[in-house]
Amino acid sequence: MKETFIRRMKDVALKDPILVEGLPGVGHVGKLVADHLVEELHAEKIIEIYSPHFPPQVMVKDDGTIKQVRNEIYAYKGRDGQPDLLLIVGDYQSATNEGHYELTGIFLDIAQEYGVKRIYALGGYGTGQFVDKPTVIGAANNIALVEEMKLYDVIFQENEPGGGIIGVSGLLLGLGGLRNMDAVCLMGVTSGYLVDPKSAQEVLRVLCTALKVEVGMEALQERGKEMEKIVGKLQEMEKAQFPYECGGDEDLRYIV
Amino acid sequence: MKETFIRRMKDVALKDPILVEGLPGVGHVGKLVADHLVEELHAEKIIEIYSPHFPPQVMVKDDGTIKQVRNEIYAYKGRDGQPDLLLIVGDYQSATNEGHYELTGIFLDIAQEYGVKRIYALGGYGTGQFVDKPTVIGAANNIALVEEMKLYDVIFQENEPGGGIIGVSGLLLGLGGLRNMDAVCLMGVTSGYLVDPKSAQEVLRVLCTALKVEVGMEALQERGKEMEKIVGKLQEMEKAQFPYECGGDEDLRYIV
Amino acid sequence: MKETFIRRMKDVALKDPILVEGLPGVGHVGKLVADHLVEELHAEKIIEIYSPHFPPQVMVKDDGTIKQVRNEIYAYKGRDGQPDLLLIVGDYQSATNEGHYELTGIFLDIAQEYGVKRIYALGGYGTGQFVDKPTVIGAANNIALVEEMKLYDVIFQENEPGGGIIGVSGLLLGLGGLRNMDAVCLMGVTSGYLVDPKSAQEVLRVLCTALKVEVGMEALQERGKEMEKIVGKLQEMEKAQFPYECGGDEDLRYIV
Amino acid sequence: MKETFIRRMKDVALKDPILVEGLPGVGHVGKLVADHLVEELHAEKIIEIYSPHFPPQVMVKDDGTIKQVRNEIYAYKGRDGQPDLLLIVGDYQSATNEGHYELTGIFLDIAQEYGVKRIYALGGYGTGQFVDKPTVIGAANNIALVEEMKLYDVIFQENEPGGGIIGVSGLLLGLGGLRNMDAVCLMGVTSGYLVDPKSAQEVLRVLCTALKVEVGMEALQERGKEMEKIVGKLQEMEKAQFPYECGGDEDLRYIV
Repeated sequence: MKETFIRRMKDVALKDPILVEGLPGVGHVGKLVADHLVEELHAEKIIEIYSPHFPPQVMVKDDGTIKQVRNEIYAYKGRDGQPDLLLIVGDYQSATNEGHYELTGIFLDIAQEYGVKRIYALGGYGTGQFVDKPTVIGAANNIALVEEMKLYDVIFQENEPGGGIIGVSGLLLGLGGLRNMDAVCLMGVTSGYLVDPKSAQEVLRVLCTALKVEVGMEALQERGKEMEKIVGKLQEMEKAQFPYECGGDEDLRYIV
Repeated sequence: MKETFIRRMKDVALKDPILVEGLPGVGHVGKLVADHLVEELHAEKIIEIYSPHFPPQVMVKDDGTIKQVRNEIYAYKGRDGQPDLLLIVGDYQSATNEGHYELTGIFLDIAQEYGVKRIYALGGYGTGQFVDKPTVIGAANNIALVEEMKLYDVIFQENEPGGGIIGVSGLLLGLGGLRNMDAVCLMGVTSGYLVDPKSAQEVLRVLCTALKVEVGMEALQERGKEMEKIVGKLQEMEKAQFPYECGGDEDLRYIV
Repeated sequence: MKETFIRRMKDVALKDPILVEGLPGVGHVGKLVADHLVEELHAEKIIEIYSPHFPPQVMVKDDGTIKQVRNEIYAYKGRDGQPDLLLIVGDYQSATNEGHYELTGIFLDIAQEYGVKRIYALGGYGTGQFVDKPTVIGAANNIALVEEMKLYDVIFQENEPGGGIIGVSGLLLGLGGLRNMDAVCLMGVTSGYLVDPKSAQEVLRVLCTALKVEVGMEALQERGKEMEKIVGKLQEMEKAQFPYECGGDEDLRYIV
Repeated sequence: MKETFIRRMKDVALKDPILVEGLPGVGHVGKLVADHLVEELHAEKIIEIYSPHFPPQVMVKDDGTIKQVRNEIYAYKGRDGQPDLLLIVGDYQSATNEGHYELTGIFLDIAQEYGVKRIYALGGYGTGQFVDKPTVIGAANNIALVEEMKLYDVIFQENEPGGGIIGVSGLLLGLGGLRNMDAVCLMGVTSGYLVDPKSAQEVLRVLCTALKVEVGMEALQERGKEMEKIVGKLQEMEKAQFPYECGGDEDLRYIV
C-alpha cells in the first residue's frame, strides 16, 4: 500500500449536501462535535480512507479486536427541512505536511462529486490558559460568510488566530476557496491541554443554529470523558516509549 | 535503487501456509521468536526484500564480511501434520511511516500469492517495569480469533495496549483484515529495556500450541544473549554518534 | 493535491525581464524588499504557486477571511527606461529540502519562459550580533557579476557566508548557473533575531542602483513593523503549541 | 528539479577501472583521501550529480562565486602499470535515507557502465577518543577480499564497527554485492571530532599499496587544515542558526 486508498462502501443520493469536518486536533473539539453528530443523526458510513500518511497503527478495542486507523465519511439525509450532510471524521490527521494537502484534495474531490457548495471545518483554538466562558472564533474564505457567521455569535477577532489555521481545517478553507466552495472554520476556544467537551458544546450550538439542525447535547459530556481516557492512554504510551522525543501529544495540539 | 526491491531466491509449493511475522521491536521479542523458529525448523529462505525505507546501512559480521540490511521470508514445509509456514524476519523495520504501509502491503501480496489465510504477528508489549511472570497479551482482527486465542492463555485486556499497535505487526492485522485474512498479534509482556528471551519463550509457547508445532526452546536463551550484544553495540554507536539526538534505540521500542 | 500547482492568472509580454526573488528568511530582509517593490511599483500578479511542500496552513486576515499560503510572481513593465521585472514573493519557503529544489526549478522554468537572463536573490545574513551600520554582502554565480556588484558597494568577503547560502536564494544561483543565467545574491547583514527594515533599506538601495529603478523608501519602516507583528504572532503560537519542539521560528532563520 | 540529475561532461575510455569513493563523513577521512587523489593524479572530471536529496545549498568560494553542492566523478587513466580509476567525491552525502539508496544505485549504474569490478569505499571510524597510532579497519563484501586486505595491514576485528556501516560507503558494499561487485570499506580510526589528516594518511597508504599507485602525501596535511576551516565555518553557522536543533555537524559524523 504505497498510495492513499479510498474504499467506497455505499452510494447515496444527496441534495446539495453541506460538508462538516471534525478530525482530531486542539482539545479534540472538532472531533467531539463531528463524532457526536454522526451518532445523534444516525448518519451512514459511505467511505473509508486509508493512507500511508496516517501513523502505521491499529487501535485496539475493548473486545480485543482492532481497527485500522483511517478517516471516514458519513452521509446524512436531512429530515424535516434539515439539509443533507457529509461528515468527515477519523482517528488521526495526516502525520506529514504533504499528506494534509493530499487528503484535503481527496475530501474536496468527494465533496465536488456530491455537489457540496459549503463546508464547515471544526476545531479548537488553544489559548494555553483556562477558559472561563467558552466562545467560538471563526475564519472564512469569503467576507459574506464572515458576516453571516457573526449572526450566529461567531467571533472574528483581528489577528486571531494569529498563526493561521494549520491542518485539514485550514486547507479546506484555502484549497476549497480555489475551487469556489464556501468554507468556514469554527474554532472552540479551549486551553488546549485536555479533551474539552464544554468547548465542543459551544461549537455544536453554533453549528446547529447555522445548519438548522437540532440534536441532543447530553451525550457530549460522556463522549468527552471516554475520549479523554483514550487520549490519555495514547499519551502515556507515547511518553513511555519516546521519553526523549519531541512530538507525541503535541501532534494533537498542532492541528485545529 | 529508488524503489523497494523483492529478490526471489526460490519457488516453493506450500499448502495453506500460515504467515508468522517477527521483526525487531519492543524487547526484540518478536524477532527472537521468529529467528528461533527459522533456525529450529530449518526453514528455507525464499525471498529477500531490500528497501530505501530501511536505514542506509550494512551490518558487519564477525569474519569481516557484511550484510545489507533487509527483510527476509522463509518457507517451512510442515512435517507430521504440522502446517506449512511462511516466516518474515529481518534486521530492521521501515524507518518511515510510509515504508511500514508499503512493506506490509508487499508482505500481504506475497501472502496472498501463497494462499495465506491466517497471520500471526509477534511482538513485545513494553510496560516500563520489571516483569515478574511473563504473559502474552493479544489483539486480533476478528472476534472469533480473539475467542480462539483465549484458549491458548492469550490475555485480552480492556484497553491494552491502550496506544494501539504500531508498525508492521499492527498493519498486518489492519490491512490484512481489509483483505479478509485472519490475523492475530501476540505480544510478550516485557520491560521494554532489554532483549527479553524470557518473554519470547512465553510467546513461542503460545504460538507453538496454536500452530501445533513443537520446537526445542533451549537455544532461545543463548540467542537472546547474542542479540543483546548486537543491540548494545548499535546503541553504543548511536549514542556516540548522535549524543544530542532523539531516536536511536528508542526506534527499537517504538514498534511491537 | 499531491503535486505543486501553478495557477496562471494573467499573461503579460515582458522584454528581457530581470528576476527578483524575496521570500521569507533571515531577518525577513529579502521579503521586506520584494514586497516593498511590488507595492511601490504597483506590479501585477501573474502567477500563484501552491505546493504540498509549504506548511499545510492558511493565514487569517484582519477581516476574518483567509489566504492559502503560497508563492506569487508579479510582473512589472518598466517605465522611463527602467527594466521589466518579475518578482517572486510569498508567505513561506518550502518546508522540505526536496521542495526547495522543486520550487527553484519551477521559478527557473518560468524565468526562462519569459526570457530572464539575470536574477537578483535577496536575503539576510544573520551575524547573531547587533549590527551598527547595515551593509550588503554578496555572492554571484560568475566572476564578472562579482566585479559588477562591487561597483554598487556590495561587499565580497573571503569565506562569507562561510556556511554557504541555503534555500531558494542559494539554489537560484546554483541551478540558475547550470542554465546559464547570471544570478547574484544580495544579503543584508542583520542580527537575525528580528524583522530588520534597516537592513532591508540597504539592500533596496543597492538593488535600485543596480536595476536603475527608483522607489520611495518611506513605507519600508512601517512595513517592517507590521511584518514583525505577524512574525511575532506566528512565533508565539508555535511556542505555545510546540513547547518541547525544535524548529519553529528557527525555520525563518534557516534560510537566506 | 524534482529528480536527481546526472550531468555528463566528458566521455572517457577506461580499462577495468577501480572505483574509489570518498565522500564527507566521520573525520572527513574518506573525503580527504579521495580529494587528495583527484588532485595528485590530475584526474579528470567526467560527471556531476545534482540531487534534491542534497541540502538546498550553494557553497561560497573565496572570490565571491558559488558552487552548487553536488557529487562528482573523476576519471584517471593509469600510467606505468597503474590501474584506471573512477573517483567519487563531493560536498555532501544525501540528507535523506532514501537518497543514500538512490545515489548509491546511480553510482553503481555508472560503475557497471564502465566495467568496474572492484570498489574501495573510504571513511573514518570514530572512537570518540584521542587516537594515538592511526590504524585502518575494514569490512568487505566477500571473504576473499577480507583475506586480501589483511595483507595490506587492514584490521578486521570481531564486531567492529559494531553498528555496521552507514551511508554510501556501506551501501556500496551491500548493494554492490547484489550486483556481484567486489567492494571493501577502509575506515581510518579517528576520534571523530575533527578533520583528521593523520588518519587519512594511513588510509591513503593502505589504498595506494592495494592499488599499486604512488602519490605524494605532503599536501594532505595542508588540505586537512583547509577543510577543517570550512567545516568549522559550517558548524559555526549551523550552531548560530539552529541553537536548539539536533543534527548539524552530527550529520558529518553520522556517516562513514
